[in-house]
Amino acid sequence: MTTTRKSFGSDNHAGAHPAVLSALAAASQGDATAYGDDPWTARASAQLADAFGARGGVFFVFNGTGANVLGLSLMLRPYEAVICAEGAHLNVDECGAPERITGCKLLTVPAADGKLTPELVATRLGGRGDEHRAQPRAVAITQATEVGTCYTLAELRRLGEFCRASGLLVYMDGARLANAAAFLRCSLSDLAAEVDVLSFGGTKNGAMGAEALVVMSASLAGAVRFQRKQQMQLASKMRFLAAQFSALLEDELWLRNARHANAMARRLADGVGGVPGVRLRHPVESNGVFAALDPELVEPLQREWNFYVWDAGEHVVRWMAAFDTTEDDVDAFVAAIRSAAGALTA
Amino acid sequence: MTTTRKSFGSDNHAGAHPAVLSALAAASQGDATAYGDDPWTARASAQLADAFGARGGVFFVFNGTGANVLGLSLMLRPYEAVICAEGAHLNVDECGAPERITGCKLLTVPAADGKLTPELVATRLGGRGDEHRAQPRAVAITQATEVGTCYTLAELRRLGEFCRASGLLVYMDGARLANAAAFLRCSLSDLAAEVDVLSFGGTKNGAMGAEALVVMSASLAGAVRFQRKQQMQLASKMRFLAAQFSALLEDELWLRNARHANAMARRLADGVGGVPGVRLRHPVESNGVFAALDPELVEPLQREWNFYVWDAGEHVVRWMAAFDTTEDDVDAFVAAIRSAAGALTA
Amino acid sequence: MTTTRKSFGSDNHAGAHPAVLSALAAASQGDATAYGDDPWTARASAQLADAFGARGGVFFVFNGTGANVLGLSLMLRPYEAVICAEGAHLNVDECGAPERITGCKLLTVPAADGKLTPELVATRLGGRGDEHRAQPRAVAITQATEVGTCYTLAELRRLGEFCRASGLLVYMDGARLANAAAFLRCSLSDLAAEVDVLSFGGTKNGAMGAEALVVMSASLAGAVRFQRKQQMQLASKMRFLAAQFSALLEDELWLRNARHANAMARRLADGVGGVPGVRLRHPVESNGVFAALDPELVEPLQREWNFYVWDAGEHVVRWMAAFDTTEDDVDAFVAAIRSAAGALTA
Amino acid sequence: MTTTRKSFGSDNHAGAHPAVLSALAAASQGDATAYGDDPWTARASAQLADAFGARGGVFFVFNGTGANVLGLSLMLRPYEAVICAEGAHLNVDECGAPERITGCKLLTVPAADGKLTPELVATRLGGRGDEHRAQPRAVAITQATEVGTCYTLAELRRLGEFCRASGLLVYMDGARLANAAAFLRCSLSDLAAEVDVLSFGGTKNGAMGAEALVVMSASLAGAVRFQRKQQMQLASKMRFLAAQFSALLEDELWLRNARHANAMARRLADGVGGVPGVRLRHPVESNGVFAALDPELVEPLQREWNFYVWDAGEHVVRWMAAFDTTEDDVDAFVAAIRSAAGALTA
Repeated sequence: MTTTRKSFGSDNHAGAHPAVLSALAAASQGDATAYGDDPWTARASAQLADAFGARGGVFFVFNGTGANVLGLSLMLRPYEAVICAEGAHLNVDECGAPERITGCKLLTVPAADGKLTPELVATRLGGRGDEHRAQPRAVAITQATEVGTCYTLAELRRLGEFCRASGLLVYMDGARLANAAAFLRCSLSDLAAEVDVLSFGGTKNGAMGAEALVVMSASLAGAVRFQRKQQMQLASKMRFLAAQFSALLEDELWLRNARHANAMARRLADGVGGVPGVRLRHPVESNGVFAALDPELVEPLQREWNFYVWDAGEHVVRWMAAFDTTEDDVDAFVAAIRSAAGALTA
Repeated sequence: MTTTRKSFGSDNHAGAHPAVLSALAAASQGDATAYGDDPWTARASAQLADAFGARGGVFFVFNGTGANVLGLSLMLRPYEAVICAEGAHLNVDECGAPERITGCKLLTVPAADGKLTPELVATRLGGRGDEHRAQPRAVAITQATEVGTCYTLAELRRLGEFCRASGLLVYMDGARLANAAAFLRCSLSDLAAEVDVLSFGGTKNGAMGAEALVVMSASLAGAVRFQRKQQMQLASKMRFLAAQFSALLEDELWLRNARHANAMARRLADGVGGVPGVRLRHPVESNGVFAALDPELVEPLQREWNFYVWDAGEHVVRWMAAFDTTEDDVDAFVAAIRSAAGALTA
Repeated sequence: MTTTRKSFGSDNHAGAHPAVLSALAAASQGDATAYGDDPWTARASAQLADAFGARGGVFFVFNGTGANVLGLSLMLRPYEAVICAEGAHLNVDECGAPERITGCKLLTVPAADGKLTPELVATRLGGRGDEHRAQPRAVAITQATEVGTCYTLAELRRLGEFCRASGLLVYMDGARLANAAAFLRCSLSDLAAEVDVLSFGGTKNGAMGAEALVVMSASLAGAVRFQRKQQMQLASKMRFLAAQFSALLEDELWLRNARHANAMARRLADGVGGVPGVRLRHPVESNGVFAALDPELVEPLQREWNFYVWDAGEHVVRWMAAFDTTEDDVDAFVAAIRSAAGALTA
Repeated sequence: MTTTRKSFGSDNHAGAHPAVLSALAAASQGDATAYGDDPWTARASAQLADAFGARGGVFFVFNGTGANVLGLSLMLRPYEAVICAEGAHLNVDECGAPERITGCKLLTVPAADGKLTPELVATRLGGRGDEHRAQPRAVAITQATEVGTCYTLAELRRLGEFCRASGLLVYMDGARLANAAAFLRCSLSDLAAEVDVLSFGGTKNGAMGAEALVVMSASLAGAVRFQRKQQMQLASKMRFLAAQFSALLEDELWLRNARHANAMARRLADGVGGVPGVRLRHPVESNGVFAALDPELVEPLQREWNFYVWDAGEHVVRWMAAFDTTEDDVDAFVAAIRSAAGALTA
């Protein structure tokens, strides 16, 4: 990054929330048994299990890819397959980790606004019982999605019902679940009601680096500790993952952070509404704004501001807000976009 | 843990060093590009590459198992094998991660004091060129070993020469490399001179959770970024792994921590010397003390003090010192051991 | 199967050619060293290597999936990806074996008539060098394709040039390569000229069960023997795989078989041309005929004749001819189709 | 092989039994649905399931490694381990296929005469429930063993009881199960009584290349068809694997072949008894003879006769008899050994 301006490149360009840093310092006092047999882990995982209604327990891991792969591995044997959106993080951005680690095939389906529906899932259910085909066994969704949209609770319910009726388990990538909860104004347990295993992200929401795997059903949890270790996601000084979640759970910091980031994305989207050369791409339902830009706008803006091109072919860019993005940051960015757009049309 | 007494259970029972906590707080200021494209990572990895003489670069990962498996994966194709000591962490304590992730076989050999020799390695070289056998391609050693001993530089040289002459690469698990450097009074580059890839542990030496993979040869580094990501060891907010190493590198904190822990282990070993019912098991060359105890000593001591039985059959226990173990901690523990032993013989 | 009528279900519904059976009996005389160190294997693999111009050698395996996965494994590391048509056998009909065994991701692309083009391949080349993405490293094509079409030599040349220029290796699934050679009236070495590794199928062309993996480039052959063994494709009594190919090579039986099967498919396609309710789907360029049927035709015909529905949604069926399909078989089947179609329109 | 003398190198140096060749020719008549949905497969697998009392069914595969790995994969998740003898084929002679394909660790134990006992198994049961350790879940034995010995039914019973009481499944590598049945004069169901999954070898006993996986318990069979396909062990023209077993089952040819091979090994062992420079190594309980030779005997004998050195360090050689080894073959070989030994002592 060549600028000290606020980055709109990613919510993980932000540092850690001060409360997280304080919690880490506090947790560092004295000794603690390693690998999770410590009071920080016991307390944070119990709090989370309670919040989600997770009978299978909650397990901390290092990162989102780790959570996704570990979660899927609880559901799948290697000859089985997971149905997911073409643009799913686990299909596009995990360097093939799901396939390598679980041995399973991903059956992808193009999904408008990043969301699967029963109808889309049904298109990938061919060949069940045929030994030549990888057997669909799970559906993986992302909430909020990679393009910033959210499944409504009704959409989740419909999908969940379909999956149960079809013998499919549901995994939910919740790297930005907090943002979905903030947008939908619902509880974590509401979000997880239709789901078998999910992740709850901390890193993009003010943590330093910590994700929680939430196992809703006790019957899927039997192997999770061994799978976590074998998949190299077991932290020795586990208290430092747990403490980050404790900080986020304190006074619902996770929700406040997510609400704020969402509001900043909303402010940004509103700010560029109607600007020539800027066409919003997906409903803004979390902390990301996607926009198709006039191609000549991209480079000048990137010279001064940090953000990524999401789809080079269609000149779509992604602007992310974080827990520490300020109204001033947004306003300055909006002004810059308007100014660049103005220069173009002048 | 039911006691507030200092734990001798593991060097990862300790918290993080205050300098590490400060560095994390400092690194949290402002935005930084994710996944390692940030100044903290650039600086810490360059410093480490320089210290080791690593032409292939230095890459941060989450934990020791992650480092070991990633390191081996740079060297091995799935039909190849790695020769290691029976008691190697990667054989005993990684839940089969090396096999699952690399597909490779471990060829194990019993090793006195945890150390491989050319002669021991040679016993596992049968069947080269025979398609029915997994092909030995790498040797994995641990420095300091799992039982607290250190390879001397001469031993490393001899092993390295043998491996080069035999077409074998060398991986070194350096979860406690700092302790070896402190014991041997040599530089990091001395330790790495005979090695192709190694890990340099931070977590057991005052970090919160960070390990460095050091790739000595540029020719082995081509795939490391992809392998790290696919193996789920890529941190998004990488600066927080890097900053931990920066703190450890500042004024050689890593060396001071290790020297201190080693000295505490030495003090403990000296303190229990000659105590009836306590027989030291391996040379004390790092921060661990292994002792065969009178079976009746184990339980009473464990009631008050935290440590693990290493070998139940032979009543061998492991006592670990950490960077924050004090002389008073050691003296109190020694007194307790002496008192328990006295009660036994009384 | 409830009928003694000739099956049009698959070319592997046929038995073995009498010459193959004779060769097996002849090869069974006396002892032979196992695992391929025998004169039958030496001779057949040398003949094939010569015919293809394969500098890396030819290796027999049990079945087509085995050949495909073994071939890909010579080209790919687990973080790499193979670009293939959505309908490729290795994507659709191998139960996820490529992913599980190689760890690699398949990047699929919809392909009209089952054939990849440089333009289609180019759509899957995004993200090269980005550690979050599985790295495209090979392109897999099928010749003849799964829908019975053939790449022309010019198409192969164009694709090969593109791949070389793009740093991509080319794998060719040749389960029906003989049929392609017969259709294109070209040599095996012509077919392989642009390819790095390919399979040459025996099973669908009169063998009992034998496929050959042809490694064109010596630099890719180093690990093939170990990979074959580790992938469980090494036959102990290898002479019996080799002898099948010897029989097929004798007086170009492989070509005569393929020509005949192609001719039977052509006769069938011609026979149903213009029949109401029967619309041919792909150019008939090998031994398969694909047709969209009036939905009410399918079941009555299947009651008497063995063939499969290829695409249930579009009522497309597949009719395959084999080396032993006779003109009478075809004519009887054509008559049955015409009669059923007539009954429908009556 | 540079000799037309009968090979004592391996039972898979022999060709196929004439009855097997006839059965293949007979099975080649007419069409048959592929992948096992044919009457040959139905009949042979039903006969075998009946003979073994296998409620989970019988499934044909290509080779012994395929059978072993497929069998283990029905029992194990990747974080689990299989306990086996150090000299087990699956540890020594499968190029790491079990680890690569199942992801599991092998926990090996030195075993006199190749046989595991409850006591030996118990030494590998440490760390159950500890997430750092691969979890022992299955025990793999070989019957007859790799060194030609047989578990008695009483030994099997004792081992089976121990395993059931210890939560361990039992896999039996039966590449030479026929030889064990012949030696022990017991039925196939007797041999399988204590076992969960086993293989029944055809290839070393007169087949051309065919092995059967026998799943005793229905609860382990759910995934076998998918696992077989994904592990590339599904034959398209399955009837040709089935027909080989049909031939072996006809009038108990499998038993007659095995009895004969055993008798030839016995004759050979008896013939070299007392010869100076030849010390038998293991009880001769199947079709192999192991002997420690005077080092100077090995090379002269190998110049004229085909056999392998089993343990170079101890000058142990392996002599195998096959279904087609004749008394004359044995007598000529014995005479050669005696003559070579005589020359040495002269």
